[in-house]
Amino acid sequence: MAFTLGPNQYGKAGVRLVSVDRSGDRHVVTDLTVASALSGDLEGTHLTGDNSAVLATDTQKNTVYAFAREFGVGEPEAFGLRLGQHFVSTQASIHRAQLTIEQHRWERFGPHSFARSGAETRRARVVVTEDGAEVSSGLGDLTVLNTTDSEFHGFPRDAYTTLPETTERMLATSVEAWWDHSSAEVDWGAAYTAAREALLAAFAGTYSYSLQQTLFAMGSRVLAEAPSVAEIRLSLPNKHHNLVDLTPFGLDNPDQVYVAPTEPYGLIEGTVRR
Amino acid sequence: MAFTLGPNQYGKAGVRLVSVDRSGDRHVVTDLTVASALSGDLEGTHLTGDNSAVLATDTQKNTVYAFAREFGVGEPEAFGLRLGQHFVSTQASIHRAQLTIEQHRWERFGPHSFARSGAETRRARVVVTEDGAEVSSGLGDLTVLNTTDSEFHGFPRDAYTTLPETTERMLATSVEAWWDHSSAEVDWGAAYTAAREALLAAFAGTYSYSLQQTLFAMGSRVLAEAPSVAEIRLSLPNKHHNLVDLTPFGLDNPDQVYVAPTEPYGLIEGTVRR
Amino acid sequence: MAFTLGPNQYGKAGVRLVSVDRSGDRHVVTDLTVASALSGDLEGTHLTGDNSAVLATDTQKNTVYAFAREFGVGEPEAFGLRLGQHFVSTQASIHRAQLTIEQHRWERFGPHSFARSGAETRRARVVVTEDGAEVSSGLGDLTVLNTTDSEFHGFPRDAYTTLPETTERMLATSVEAWWDHSSAEVDWGAAYTAAREALLAAFAGTYSYSLQQTLFAMGSRVLAEAPSVAEIRLSLPNKHHNLVDLTPFGLDNPDQVYVAPTEPYGLIEGTVRR
Amino acid sequence: MAFTLGPNQYGKAGVRLVSVDRSGDRHVVTDLTVASALSGDLEGTHLTGDNSAVLATDTQKNTVYAFAREFGVGEPEAFGLRLGQHFVSTQASIHRAQLTIEQHRWERFGPHSFARSGAETRRARVVVTEDGAEVSSGLGDLTVLNTTDSEFHGFPRDAYTTLPETTERMLATSVEAWWDHSSAEVDWGAAYTAAREALLAAFAGTYSYSLQQTLFAMGSRVLAEAPSVAEIRLSLPNKHHNLVDLTPFGLDNPDQVYVAPTEPYGLIEGTVRR
Repeated sequence: MAFTLGPNQYGKAGVRLVSVDRSGDRHVVTDLTVASALSGDLEGTHLTGDNSAVLATDTQKNTVYAFAREFGVGEPEAFGLRLGQHFVSTQASIHRAQLTIEQHRWERFGPHSFARSGAETRRARVVVTEDGAEVSSGLGDLTVLNTTDSEFHGFPRDAYTTLPETTERMLATSVEAWWDHSSAEVDWGAAYTAAREALLAAFAGTYSYSLQQTLFAMGSRVLAEAPSVAEIRLSLPNKHHNLVDLTPFGLDNPDQVYVAPTEPYGLIEGTVRR
Repeated sequence: MAFTLGPNQYGKAGVRLVSVDRSGDRHVVTDLTVASALSGDLEGTHLTGDNSAVLATDTQKNTVYAFAREFGVGEPEAFGLRLGQHFVSTQASIHRAQLTIEQHRWERFGPHSFARSGAETRRARVVVTEDGAEVSSGLGDLTVLNTTDSEFHGFPRDAYTTLPETTERMLATSVEAWWDHSSAEVDWGAAYTAAREALLAAFAGTYSYSLQQTLFAMGSRVLAEAPSVAEIRLSLPNKHHNLVDLTPFGLDNPDQVYVAPTEPYGLIEGTVRR
Repeated sequence: MAFTLGPNQYGKAGVRLVSVDRSGDRHVVTDLTVASALSGDLEGTHLTGDNSAVLATDTQKNTVYAFAREFGVGEPEAFGLRLGQHFVSTQASIHRAQLTIEQHRWERFGPHSFARSGAETRRARVVVTEDGAEVSSGLGDLTVLNTTDSEFHGFPRDAYTTLPETTERMLATSVEAWWDHSSAEVDWGAAYTAAREALLAAFAGTYSYSLQQTLFAMGSRVLAEAPSVAEIRLSLPNKHHNLVDLTPFGLDNPDQVYVAPTEPYGLIEGTVRR
Repeated sequence: MAFTLGPNQYGKAGVRLVSVDRSGDRHVVTDLTVASALSGDLEGTHLTGDNSAVLATDTQKNTVYAFAREFGVGEPEAFGLRLGQHFVSTQASIHRAQLTIEQHRWERFGPHSFARSGAETRRARVVVTEDGAEVSSGLGDLTVLNTTDSEFHGFPRDAYTTLPETTERMLATSVEAWWDHSSAEVDWGAAYTAAREALLAAFAGTYSYSLQQTLFAMGSRVLAEAPSVAEIRLSLPNKHHNLVDLTPFGLDNPDQVYVAPTEPYGLIEGTVRR
């Protein structure tokens, strides 16, 4: 009985690269985790173990480190494009290269001293084929909270509905967002900063009747302020903050004391397009 | 400037459900983490905060617990189908329900005593629409290791290749697999057990020239032994075990002492189809 | 055969408490994870299951939430003292209460909008007995990096030593620190801020020949600037940044490209006292 | 202002060592994470950066790998003793060596094929000084559950108590245990197996009125069955399984459907001695 090979890719993940630019008085640190994934004429290795088309994942990793020295790292989108173009153009059997890069944030507190700032990461994903390249930018683990200006009511009530309606609730989420660029000629750093600020401004500035409404507002704000962005996808866990019932102790709770459980959590996912 | 709502869904994740069947002398524990995600006529909540179509995620969670009591849990695929059909058939504005269920493993060591066995989980994903249902089964975090019968050579060597060829290496991975059923009339428990055993047997029994070859063998074995399976997707991190160079200490290392770093790791992903 | 009960304590951990002060135009969020642990005349519950002395851990949790409303949260040290004194003074059989509190950091970006800033947490530990109270403050998961001003040489070389000496290395660590106060009459907020700034200033300002030297400098700086602190204990993982050998690719690496593995890591622990 | 160096130690943690014994037809895998911590005449490095007494943590790591080849790994207690004696006897300035070893479990499913079995780890801690050695053994992350034979009542009720009394509850915990040996002449493997079985048997076999009672029974059973053990310390999180209130849906819940939240959790810690 013979079966068929469907979609497949392979590569190296968890490639930790820290690069230091010592050219000025104030050092600059770039801290990345890189993943590469290649596709192409890979039937051989799957069916018979013939590896003549398999650029080793160890080689992919080496290329990341060597390119960081040869060309510098710069913006993650540009670094990914350079790596992807290299793999596709130099390996005859590789027709698609995907680079996913996560950049960890460090905040300066001295000319050569830095503190890691948060779980939040900047992200870039680049797909290079013989036909061209697609670039997405994003961020993840940006946890934000509004203490007011959030209501939730008017939802249907069936036999399993117990949730009370509310005109005052905490709204917290951990933003994961990816936005696609319509061009590869973008000032990646400026575009990233603009998109991040748009996300924060829309989260803080939206009077919200549902996390879906906040999501749409956040996505729209990015599209409005970043002309190169064609589409944005947001994944927003609703990190519930539940008002604690203090009446057994003879106490009221005027929107003051909350419990923030790990689970369960809502999960709101949506796309906003031009 | 007006933008458009693209693909979206919302639901509750991290719903922890433990159900105990006390009907026999030997209790049976079913331990699930359930996530629901609904799609449909949801423009209102995104654009204006009109929640009249939004079955609350809290209600979705309640339904999970109530159904566990009303109908029992049983196999995760069947439980997901029941929940999905409920959401789509009772909510006029909901046209698609996706249930993703992870089952945690407990091993009995007494009539009512159990030990959690491993990080490995059984998984099921069900998508219900007005047109019918699609069912996938899977598993994750099944970490396996072969101490021999693995080689890796014949790969291309470019300017960034330093990896030596080897005819003897450790091969370790943490299996994540999803397989699609061509029917919803399946003995889910038996099919799961057969697929899991096929994966293990193929991993242990394949003399491997690449992890890709092992992947294809594992997928093929599942297809060969589980007639209801139309396609299987495997994601196999290559958890490297690197032979330690002991020559600085005047020692050889005849395939005995390895370091197993967390990162980087290879990541081999592929699909096998009939 | 009869055995003896030795040291023991019990309590509730992972009590997630978020409190919002809405009294001003700019809301203030306090986000804590609280753990309580009580000791006392607890032979009964251990030996026979007599729970008459066991204030339920659920009750301990309730007390945390109720006190947040009744008295406000304020500084974690003060909140812990209040809780500890309550447990010891109201439960005849409880002779010692330990409260461990972790405060999560939020950074304001609007009058009622906040972003979670980092994994770093402020910590407090309070032990209350009939004889009085001991208070420690601390912080954890403060990850910092110096790109220069760090050397390591002059260490002994035995048959297992391969590490080269270096006069230029990256120095990174994730600070965990606990410092004990000689009094319970302290301005906790100001003392915490002073200690945190002292740790950062000493890390950035110390030209380091070993992480031990940096540890001692950090501890000394806290003692010098915080008169209420009697002793400080630091645990500093040496988060290695290894220069990548690029010579196989015909490239030098002038302190530019590093790999930052998760493990192994050094672990330097020490105490500085007056 | 001069300050004093208090207790301190330094070493390497996260040393991942996998050793394969290929001498028989059936390979044997030993998978360890090793941490070493040395103490001694270390004022120099702390006060002035003089490293002449500092055996590099990199050297400590190398020694672990070299000893695995030179002497084999064997039981973790014995491996730790060998390493500790080496550090103390060969480094004039090192007076105390602590080795903490975690052994990951693999289950055989073929002559050279293994599956990782669970989060549970076997543990050993050895402290070697010029005066001798102390050996502790242990385990961690052994998650167990009793579906019945657990009650909890008779506890005091104060103004903050809402917990109902129960004569039927689920009892689940994740065992962490350390036991001290009165001698270093022990069959470590047999003693470990006996202690682990005693812990499981006592958990399953104790009709429990409190987790404290179960803890004492588990500790006593180890002391009764393992003559070399002088004392055992147990840390048992009470992993709550809360019966879901289904009455809003017109359903009863006869000890069938539970929610298992991550937090908060009870934490019961105690010591049992001869």
